[in-house]
Amino acid sequence: MNMQELIKPLIQKNESKIVMIVLDGVGGLPNASGRTELETADTPNLDALARGSACGLHIPVAHGITPGSGPGHLGIFGYDPIKCQIGRGILEALGLGMEVRKTDVAVRCNYATIKEGVVTDRRAGRIPTEQSKKLTEKLQKEIKKIDDAELIFAPGMEHRFAVLMRFPDNLASDADMINDTDPQREGKAPVPPAALSKNAGRVSKIAEKLISKVQAILKNEEKANFILTRGFSNMPRIPNFDEAFGLNALAIATYPMYRGLARLVGMDTPALEGSVEDEITFLKQQYNEYDFFFLHVKKVDSYGEDGNFEGKAARIEEFDKLLPQILNLKPDVFVITGDHSTPAIMKGHSWHPVPVLIKSPYVLGGICNAFSERECVKGELGIFPALNIMPLALAHAGRLKKFGA
Amino acid sequence: MNMQELIKPLIQKNESKIVMIVLDGVGGLPNASGRTELETADTPNLDALARGSACGLHIPVAHGITPGSGPGHLGIFGYDPIKCQIGRGILEALGLGMEVRKTDVAVRCNYATIKEGVVTDRRAGRIPTEQSKKLTEKLQKEIKKIDDAELIFAPGMEHRFAVLMRFPDNLASDADMINDTDPQREGKAPVPPAALSKNAGRVSKIAEKLISKVQAILKNEEKANFILTRGFSNMPRIPNFDEAFGLNALAIATYPMYRGLARLVGMDTPALEGSVEDEITFLKQQYNEYDFFFLHVKKVDSYGEDGNFEGKAARIEEFDKLLPQILNLKPDVFVITGDHSTPAIMKGHSWHPVPVLIKSPYVLGGICNAFSERECVKGELGIFPALNIMPLALAHAGRLKKFGA
Repeated sequence: MNMQELIKPLIQKNESKIVMIVLDGVGGLPNASGRTELETADTPNLDALARGSACGLHIPVAHGITPGSGPGHLGIFGYDPIKCQIGRGILEALGLGMEVRKTDVAVRCNYATIKEGVVTDRRAGRIPTEQSKKLTEKLQKEIKKIDDAELIFAPGMEHRFAVLMRFPDNLASDADMINDTDPQREGKAPVPPAALSKNAGRVSKIAEKLISKVQAILKNEEKANFILTRGFSNMPRIPNFDEAFGLNALAIATYPMYRGLARLVGMDTPALEGSVEDEITFLKQQYNEYDFFFLHVKKVDSYGEDGNFEGKAARIEEFDKLLPQILNLKPDVFVITGDHSTPAIMKGHSWHPVPVLIKSPYVLGGICNAFSERECVKGELGIFPALNIMPLALAHAGRLKKFGA
Repeated sequence: MNMQELIKPLIQKNESKIVMIVLDGVGGLPNASGRTELETADTPNLDALARGSACGLHIPVAHGITPGSGPGHLGIFGYDPIKCQIGRGILEALGLGMEVRKTDVAVRCNYATIKEGVVTDRRAGRIPTEQSKKLTEKLQKEIKKIDDAELIFAPGMEHRFAVLMRFPDNLASDADMINDTDPQREGKAPVPPAALSKNAGRVSKIAEKLISKVQAILKNEEKANFILTRGFSNMPRIPNFDEAFGLNALAIATYPMYRGLARLVGMDTPALEGSVEDEITFLKQQYNEYDFFFLHVKKVDSYGEDGNFEGKAARIEEFDKLLPQILNLKPDVFVITGDHSTPAIMKGHSWHPVPVLIKSPYVLGGICNAFSERECVKGELGIFPALNIMPLALAHAGRLKKFGA
């Protein structure tokens, strides 16, 4: 029995509020100073909070597995990131801010150059974003529907864009059984978007028509006269967050990708721009309207990805200064964690367990002196799968009945 | 492969003795003093033992899951509490001290008031226990057998009682596929005990006859003129403790429920009354007769449930004073733990990991300075599923062979 099946009959509703802050990529490693980013940052508020909280480290996917943003978030949202995988097309569409629906099939696309039937440039010379945007608008204008699917285009950076096929029903399944058409090497012919399963046939036919229509429209372009399509995918079939956990949830995030991930599990995801302080202001405004709040702090990860150790520490300090504003709301359960580690010395995501803190009246506390990797190792939560954060949060909120008598 | 399947081919017998003390609900949380019940209690013997033992915390069922007494005990007895769920009828019968057999079907019953076909009081005005006892004796006298099932009645508190249907074979299965007859609301007709599966038909027929016979017998009662039946259940089909672990086991418990849980896994469960000291005296008397001893200390939980923090701490101190008597037996493996946490500040069971201590010659020790939640967090056993206590105990007892060559 998986976690969601186990807890489903135990869920009870009440008036409690759960706030979950995700400091994207917060986990780190020591640089030459011997201290990690969290240990370097001056964080008096986080450290005081950790002293009175249950602390530990979560493993996002499995030992040694470095998660992308998708699995990283799914785990902390309480969805098994191994069983519930998000197709690349869906993730691309979410990242471009597209509103993806349950009946959509999403595809990642590249503009490419083709000559005499072979691909001569898989990225169409990395055409400028501005030019790519114009081409994508042109495609949208000329291709609105193929068979029974509405076609929705969204431009990306340089040669990249995404397409949604919006079906009137949810029968266009098995989209991930369609071949990528990218031949992976220049000098080869594009691969046809063949269906590897019977159910994928409907989508495959539309993909074929799409590619030939696009080729006709772009035939006079010097570089971008063709497209390569990859990552055909359906929305994962997962229970809605409210259905799974009995929580009416709001996502507060300024980057489209993270709103998209939250929308995928069924949280409300109003568009939002601005700083972390703006996000907190929005949290305060919406505090009476929801049971559960996911607030995403992106920049911690961005500086980690850039290898900017001090920059990442500074972003953590910035959050620390704003923390009292959230504490003033007195949420019944307050969770602070990350979706994965992004050690600046590695300039990228990593597999390392991620510090997590749960504040409620029902903790031991008094064990960890700060919110950091090395302090959280000592904590009462131990090192545990990310998937278990949600049942713990629900238990602390009094939202899970007793199991058995 | 589950734990029992894994260890079964590895089990070897020897002369070792394993003593497992269950301090019911021992885990706690800090009150205003900042200390938990275990930290508050003066426990020099437990603390000295912890210093020389392997310590840790076990998770009874899963993260965030608050176990009832059934799942709590099954886990520490080495049975997966999620796969092996105990029906409500079975648990009620065990709690009333009934001897439940493998071929029995158990049912929780309420006396109720019915008028013109609708239930007007689901609890028959909570009739006094004494009156309910008399009615139950009357039912037993008049209903001894229905079809091929012997009927056994046991009175409970107020309007509650339990019935066993004792079959001559084990074919009366799927009892949990029978509807509760309680309509859940007054003013509605009782629900017939319909079989939701084919196999449940035999039990369903007997239930129908039982209800109509009872109605005839009680027809002149003012309040208790009907019964509502719930939680139809068979005994869980699980391997006997001896078969699973190669241990001839004795349960020492003064409360019927816990003897019942031990009997369910096949331990010997002689009736016993008295104090914890009486239980220890019984342990000494029986020490040569068994391989494994489960000794249950109930009152720690009772005071926790009442929210009596000092009372719970005092019960722990009381046990601490008696501990040397058990240590004098020099068991090869000595386990002290609880079946779940019952923090006095929560006045009930909780999901929090439970301190566990394993004393044998084969431990690191020297890590934890006391037997408490916060000291056990540091321990060499870490935070681990309750299910793994039994294989650890067997290993420390030299009762598990090497796996593979």
